[in-house]
Amino acid sequence: ATTGDAKAGAKKVAMCAACHGATGHSAINIYPNLAGQHANYLESALKAYRSGERAGGMSAMMTPQAANLSDQDIADIAAYFSTQK
Amino acid sequence: ATTGDAKAGAKKVAMCAACHGATGHSAINIYPNLAGQHANYLESALKAYRSGERAGGMSAMMTPQAANLSDQDIADIAAYFSTQK
Repeated sequence: ATTGDAKAGAKKVAMCAACHGATGHSAINIYPNLAGQHANYLESALKAYRSGERAGGMSAMMTPQAANLSDQDIADIAAYFSTQK
Repeated sequence: ATTGDAKAGAKKVAMCAACHGATGHSAINIYPNLAGQHANYLESALKAYRSGERAGGMSAMMTPQAANLSDQDIADIAAYFSTQK
């Protein structure tokens, strides 16, 4: 699998930060906190949005966001949030 | 909406604890940590599994788990994990 790079991820999370917070603490309670979440889980969730396997909830928002992310982007973004406190 | 009761939820999480940990810290990194997650998000996720809107990832496991949960069960379980540190 692709290995995520949290430093590279930090440069790719501007759009995520709008809802999830710059360090993964979301102010709005329907958006999940991502800080310290398992990177593998975050990758699995992003890929499920990208593939359209996840509907419901905020998928109308998440699917287009994930649509143009590469596997490396996803690994880097997951690494970034998983290393946040 | 249904108001969740964390104390009632504590009695309903035995099956969740097997993968997510008794207080929402999962040892296996494909299972998300739930401790301190927003209750509204947890409810939304459980309902998406229950309705089958969430596929992919561990949905094969989660959908049957969520299938027989009532809205009150879901609110209580969400309240329980959201109040864990």
